[in-house]
Amino acid sequence: MAEVLSFRTDASKASASLVLRQLADGILRLTLNNPPANHLSLAMMETLMGELQNAAEDDDVRVVIIASTGDVFSAGHDLKELTEHRADADDGEAFFEETFALAADLMLEITKLPKPVIAEIDGLATAAGCQLVASCDLAICTDTATFCTPGVNIGLFCATPMVALTRSAHRKQAMEMLLTGETIDASTAKDFGLVNRIVPKQYLQQVVTKYASVIASKSPMAIQIGKEAFYRQVEMPVEEAYGYAAEVMVDSMMTEDAEEGIGAFLENRMPDWTRD
Amino acid sequence: MAEVLSFRTDASKASASLVLRQLADGILRLTLNNPPANHLSLAMMETLMGELQNAAEDDDVRVVIIASTGDVFSAGHDLKELTEHRADADDGEAFFEETFALAADLMLEITKLPKPVIAEIDGLATAAGCQLVASCDLAICTDTATFCTPGVNIGLFCATPMVALTRSAHRKQAMEMLLTGETIDASTAKDFGLVNRIVPKQYLQQVVTKYASVIASKSPMAIQIGKEAFYRQVEMPVEEAYGYAAEVMVDSMMTEDAEEGIGAFLENRMPDWTRD
Amino acid sequence: MAEVLSFRTDASKASASLVLRQLADGILRLTLNNPPANHLSLAMMETLMGELQNAAEDDDVRVVIIASTGDVFSAGHDLKELTEHRADADDGEAFFEETFALAADLMLEITKLPKPVIAEIDGLATAAGCQLVASCDLAICTDTATFCTPGVNIGLFCATPMVALTRSAHRKQAMEMLLTGETIDASTAKDFGLVNRIVPKQYLQQVVTKYASVIASKSPMAIQIGKEAFYRQVEMPVEEAYGYAAEVMVDSMMTEDAEEGIGAFLENRMPDWTRD
Repeated sequence: MAEVLSFRTDASKASASLVLRQLADGILRLTLNNPPANHLSLAMMETLMGELQNAAEDDDVRVVIIASTGDVFSAGHDLKELTEHRADADDGEAFFEETFALAADLMLEITKLPKPVIAEIDGLATAAGCQLVASCDLAICTDTATFCTPGVNIGLFCATPMVALTRSAHRKQAMEMLLTGETIDASTAKDFGLVNRIVPKQYLQQVVTKYASVIASKSPMAIQIGKEAFYRQVEMPVEEAYGYAAEVMVDSMMTEDAEEGIGAFLENRMPDWTRD
Repeated sequence: MAEVLSFRTDASKASASLVLRQLADGILRLTLNNPPANHLSLAMMETLMGELQNAAEDDDVRVVIIASTGDVFSAGHDLKELTEHRADADDGEAFFEETFALAADLMLEITKLPKPVIAEIDGLATAAGCQLVASCDLAICTDTATFCTPGVNIGLFCATPMVALTRSAHRKQAMEMLLTGETIDASTAKDFGLVNRIVPKQYLQQVVTKYASVIASKSPMAIQIGKEAFYRQVEMPVEEAYGYAAEVMVDSMMTEDAEEGIGAFLENRMPDWTRD
Repeated sequence: MAEVLSFRTDASKASASLVLRQLADGILRLTLNNPPANHLSLAMMETLMGELQNAAEDDDVRVVIIASTGDVFSAGHDLKELTEHRADADDGEAFFEETFALAADLMLEITKLPKPVIAEIDGLATAAGCQLVASCDLAICTDTATFCTPGVNIGLFCATPMVALTRSAHRKQAMEMLLTGETIDASTAKDFGLVNRIVPKQYLQQVVTKYASVIASKSPMAIQIGKEAFYRQVEMPVEEAYGYAAEVMVDSMMTEDAEEGIGAFLENRMPDWTRD
C-alpha cells in the first residue's frame, strides 16, 4: 500500500503542520500534530475544519481517520489561549464565542460529512477532545486510552462535549463523567458506547486502517446516502423516520450501484462500483 | 399444554404455509416457513401482516411469538424478487415503493399491536430480518444467532432497518453494523440492547414460551394500555411524558383489573383477570 | 467529619420523621424512614418534596443523597392507602390523580434541582421506588440491591416509572422489566444504565459520600449551570443543542468561577470557589 504524505499547498506551513495529512487507497488520515496536548486551539480547529471541507469535495477520499501524535489524543480547548483573551476589551467574550461556535460547527461538520469519520484514540481524550471522539461516526482506541470531561474541575461544565456525549451513552453514565470530572478507562468507554473497539497499542493503526478499508470498499454513494439518513432519521418520530427511510431505500434501489451490487450478489461475483 | 396447529381458512394454501400458526394458552406462535432464507418477500410480509392484524382482534391471543424454521431467522427482503421487477416499465420503482412501505407498516404494526411480540431467533437475522428483531418488543436468541445489516455490501444502505436499530442500540454500535455490514454474534447483540436473552438452542422455544406465559398471565388490559403508552411516551419531552403517563396511571387504577390485582396483592391471593 | 442530625422545625413530628435529614460538608442526606417498605405515600412524597425544595434554596447544600432505612429502598406507592380511597365518593379518582401528579412532580423536581441528587440503594427498589432511582442524576447500589417494575402483577402497568426507565436504559431492556414484572439484580441494572456503581453493603454509605464530596468540591455555579443544561439539551435536536450549549459555555467562561478555576489550573494550584 503506497502512502503519500502531502501538505496542502494552500495552507501556511505553520497551520498545515498542525494537522498531518496522508491519503492512500481512499483513506484520508488526519493526524493532530501539536503534542503534547494536541489542543483544539482556534488554529487547530480551523485547520481540521479546512481538511474536512476539502475531504467532503474530494472524490479520492472515501473514509477519514482522525488520529494524533504523542501520548494525548487531544486535551480539548487551549486554556492558555482562552485566558489570554481575558485581556481583550470585552474580557474575551467575542473570542470565547468564536471558539465554542467553531467547535460546535466542527463537530457538526463531522456528522454532516458525506464520508465516515473514524476516531483513532491513543492516550487521553479530554473535554473537547472527548467531544471529538463522541462526534466521530466510529471510534477505536488502545487499551490504555482514557476519557474524561473535567470542566467541573476548572469552574466550567463540559456543556458542548455533553451534547455529543449524551447522544452516545446512557444518561447516568454521561452524567457521572460530567459531574465528577473523573477519568474512565477504555473498557468503560466501550461499555458506555463511546468507542467501538479496543486494540493493543501496537495494532491500533493497523486495525483502524482495516476498518477504514472495509468501509472504503463499499459503494461511496450508498455510504453517503446512508450516513446522511442516519443522523436525520434518528431525530425524527418513528413513523416519520420510517416514511423518510422507505423513500431513501427506493431512491437507493434506483441507483446504478444498487443494481450492480444486487446483481453481483445474485451472480455470486464481486461488485464493481467504478464502472460508468 | 394442548397445542393446536391451524391454518387460517381465509388464506390461500400457498400464502398460509408461508407462516405457520399455532395458538395455545393465549400464546400465538407465528413461524416464518420459507427456508432456507425466510425472505421477507411481499407475500411473506402480507401474510405476516394479516396474522398480526387478526391477532390484534383475537381475544384468545395475549402474546405473539415470531419464530422461523431452518437455519436462518430471516435474510430480509427477497433480492431476486426485487431484481425481477427491474424489468417493469418503471424499472421497478412502484414495486420497490410497495415493498419498503409494507415493510415499514409491518414493523410499525408490531409496535402498535396491543399485545407484546417476542422475536425467537435461531440462526442469522440480516437486513430487514434484523429490523424485524429490533422491532419486536422483546427478543430472545440462541447462542449461535447472528445479526447484520449488510446493505452496504450490495450498493445499498440498510436505511429502514436503521430506524429500528438506532432506537434499540447506541449510535456508534448501530453505525458500526451499518457502515461495515459485518456480522455480530449473540453476545454483542445483547450488549447492544438488540436482544434480551441468549439461550442454548435446545432450550430456545421452551424459554421463549416461558417468557410468553409469564406475560400472558398478566392482565391483558394492563399490558395493552402499557405497551401503547410505552411507545407514545418515549417520543415525548419528559414533562409531557409525565403528564400523559400520570393520566394513564389514573385511568388504569379505575379499571376492574387494577382493583382486582391490588386487592389480590393486599389479600395475598392470586388475581383473577377473567371474572365479569 | 462532624455530622448534624436535625429535624426541620416547620414540619410536624410525624411527617418529619418520615424523612431523616442530615447535613454535613455541603452534603444533604435524606433518608426515607418508614420501613419496612418505605412507601412513597402521599405524606412521604410531600415530605421529600419539601426537603428538595428547601435544598434548592439552601446555599449550604451542594449535593443531595436519597437513601433509606431498612431492607427495602422503596416499594413504591402505598397500595393500601390507594385502595382505602376506593371508598371515596369518586371511587378514589381524585386521590389517584393527586398521587400520580405529585409523584411526577417529585421526579421532575429531582431533575430540575440545581444540585445533583444521588440515589443510594440498599435492598429492593420497586415500581415508583425504581422510578425514584431512575430519576436521580446518579445511582449507587449494593451488590444485593434489586430493581423491578411489577405493576403488571397487580393489573397495572408501571406507566410513570416507565418514563424515567426508558430515559435511562435501552428500550428492550426497559420493556422486559415492564412486561414481565420480574426483578433484576444490581449487575444487570448497571448493564442497563440504571445505576452507576455497585458497592459491597459495608462500603455503600462511604462510597456514596465520597462521590458526593467530589461533586461538592466543584464550583456550585458550574454544577448548577451544567445540570440544567444537561436535561434541556438532551431533548433538543442536535444543532439546536449545540447552539444552546455553546452559549452556555460562553456564559460560563464569563463567570468568576471559570476565571478562578482556569487560572488555578494554569498556575498549578487548587481553585478557591468561596472568594468574593
